[in-house]
Amino acid sequence: MDELIAPPGLKGLIVADTTIGSVRGDEGFFHYRDHDAVEIARHQTFEAAASLLIDGTLPSAAEESSMRAQLATNRMLSAELIDALRAIVAVTNNPLPALRAAISLVVDDTATIDLTPEERRERAIRVVGATPSVLAAIYRIAANKPVLDADPSLSHAADYVRMVTGTAASPTLARAVETYLLLTADHGFNASTFTARVITSTGAGVGSAFAGAIGALSGPLHGGAPSRVLDMINAIGSPQNTEDWARDELKAGRKLMGFGHAVYRADDPRSLLLRETAVGLGGELVDQAIEIEQRMLAFLAEWRPEATIVTNVEFYAAVVMHLAGISQDMFTPTFTTSRVVGWAAHVLEQAANNKIMRPKARYVGPAVKVP
Amino acid sequence: MDELIAPPGLKGLIVADTTIGSVRGDEGFFHYRDHDAVEIARHQTFEAAASLLIDGTLPSAAEESSMRAQLATNRMLSAELIDALRAIVAVTNNPLPALRAAISLVVDDTATIDLTPEERRERAIRVVGATPSVLAAIYRIAANKPVLDADPSLSHAADYVRMVTGTAASPTLARAVETYLLLTADHGFNASTFTARVITSTGAGVGSAFAGAIGALSGPLHGGAPSRVLDMINAIGSPQNTEDWARDELKAGRKLMGFGHAVYRADDPRSLLLRETAVGLGGELVDQAIEIEQRMLAFLAEWRPEATIVTNVEFYAAVVMHLAGISQDMFTPTFTTSRVVGWAAHVLEQAANNKIMRPKARYVGPAVKVP
Repeated sequence: MDELIAPPGLKGLIVADTTIGSVRGDEGFFHYRDHDAVEIARHQTFEAAASLLIDGTLPSAAEESSMRAQLATNRMLSAELIDALRAIVAVTNNPLPALRAAISLVVDDTATIDLTPEERRERAIRVVGATPSVLAAIYRIAANKPVLDADPSLSHAADYVRMVTGTAASPTLARAVETYLLLTADHGFNASTFTARVITSTGAGVGSAFAGAIGALSGPLHGGAPSRVLDMINAIGSPQNTEDWARDELKAGRKLMGFGHAVYRADDPRSLLLRETAVGLGGELVDQAIEIEQRMLAFLAEWRPEATIVTNVEFYAAVVMHLAGISQDMFTPTFTTSRVVGWAAHVLEQAANNKIMRPKARYVGPAVKVP
Repeated sequence: MDELIAPPGLKGLIVADTTIGSVRGDEGFFHYRDHDAVEIARHQTFEAAASLLIDGTLPSAAEESSMRAQLATNRMLSAELIDALRAIVAVTNNPLPALRAAISLVVDDTATIDLTPEERRERAIRVVGATPSVLAAIYRIAANKPVLDADPSLSHAADYVRMVTGTAASPTLARAVETYLLLTADHGFNASTFTARVITSTGAGVGSAFAGAIGALSGPLHGGAPSRVLDMINAIGSPQNTEDWARDELKAGRKLMGFGHAVYRADDPRSLLLRETAVGLGGELVDQAIEIEQRMLAFLAEWRPEATIVTNVEFYAAVVMHLAGISQDMFTPTFTTSRVVGWAAHVLEQAANNKIMRPKARYVGPAVKVP
């Protein structure tokens, strides 16, 4: 039999069929189910997008309000859970590892193959709902601030901002963060989504899949480091310094944060809408970011004319999150509060039509001593 | 461009090169580095096998004793960590989710891409060393028994048995459990090992990779349910009932535990050595298991003559663990205490020569409404 060898990094290899969505990198387009994801982000709530991704269709008003209630209920954490978070944070105050640990406390780990589709969905929704509250609690415990209870009357996005920052966000700011969350709820078969599906394929519990996915997302090559975008903007300072700063960074072999994407060759549609969102918020930082972006793109087009380097989602995401009062170490955790929706949809799709994923490796070490 | 489509479950697809080992299912053979794994299990300690898998060669006496000291040091848990385990167990007493949560407390989650190879190895060894102690502590906290400190003078296997059961095992029993651990330290690109490598490929921390792998292992289609083997032996009772019992199970659409393997078509070499190990321990249960096995294999050969169904590693593993006084709910967790070694080797190999794993899916849903 001929050996079947996957391309490095499985790049371009189709490993599953999905009805959840996909990314058309060459067109600068991505979709959630059968809807343009950017249109969803413009016109829908986070709750409606969660319904769309998890349940398959845009919700009716009643369905949307049901999803809102389900998420709100799950945002409320038990005292026992908060006690356990305190004990965890006493050992590690790194938000993503602490969230990963907390997943074991949010849902039981009954094997998905022993659950009905409804029971799986209920557990997935529980994680989606609890994630912002757990992250906010971890952040505030580590900062010696009181943990705030969820407010079920608020939207998921607005309540997250309030629970983290301690202050109710203005409707404009809350909607800006919601736009970011809407734009990042799902995005093809990225490494964390793939991880969630591989784990689900063993029949493991819903919590196992989310915990693995959180780990994958924490990798700088995937969840990235949007916080470093803000460092970059601060380091550049006056936009006239952009070219000199960028040249020095590239010569030193470092990467420029906020530019370039593995899949998008045309504009990253997420960065376009987030730029518009940032412009809507206005202010000095936004003006500075826009001028730095323009100069950086012009510089990169000259530096590497053969490549098409676009602004990625992290650039304006960092600006929007900063303006909403979210601290830099919570940027990637904030990304997690939206991506849990995509993982939920993929875990449920995998479990509904499952086959264990068990590839092979090729042994290339010294000849084996056979007795 | 033609679409590149992976086989279902990635079965037979080579996704990486490795020097850690492999499984030759048709030959009933597997190896660790360039050594027959069964020979290693017969003649080496668990510590020597850990050296071989993690560092690449069979250790000298000094290297073996260094590995023994490294594992022993890491078996010792801080009071802070045990406090956090108590808080975790108050919410979930399921050993694998609790262990998964505890990984966040055992190692910091510095991105592997920001670590030197030595720093990565140190973290991987920390998880390998701590795993049996964490599992034993979780088990005993849940059972309202005192948590026992590690005893660095004991071997890793003997200390694990003592910490779980509360009683020092006889040298024969300790060696029997060690044989099981030796036989299950690594086994090709199974789903948990693959998960660990996908997570590592994002540059994520060592703890992220282990936590994801634990989740995958907990899946019944992977880590299996060796505890159900014991239930089966008890349910059959007298070996003469084997055929009737098996026929009823198969007619009811249930699987027979302890028989059949995804890869082995010839004998599973692990079950052969574990049978020998069980015979060395002797006693009624062993006699009963051997007769049930013989009858079951004869029955299966008649029931499905076209298939080659072999006894898998779980059958005698269950017998050996039971005789060592390990309770059934700790069977899959005990498997974890050995497989962490394989994950460690694979995490380090992936990190040393990394490319992010990001495959694709094919959208097969309704036509997308493009605006």
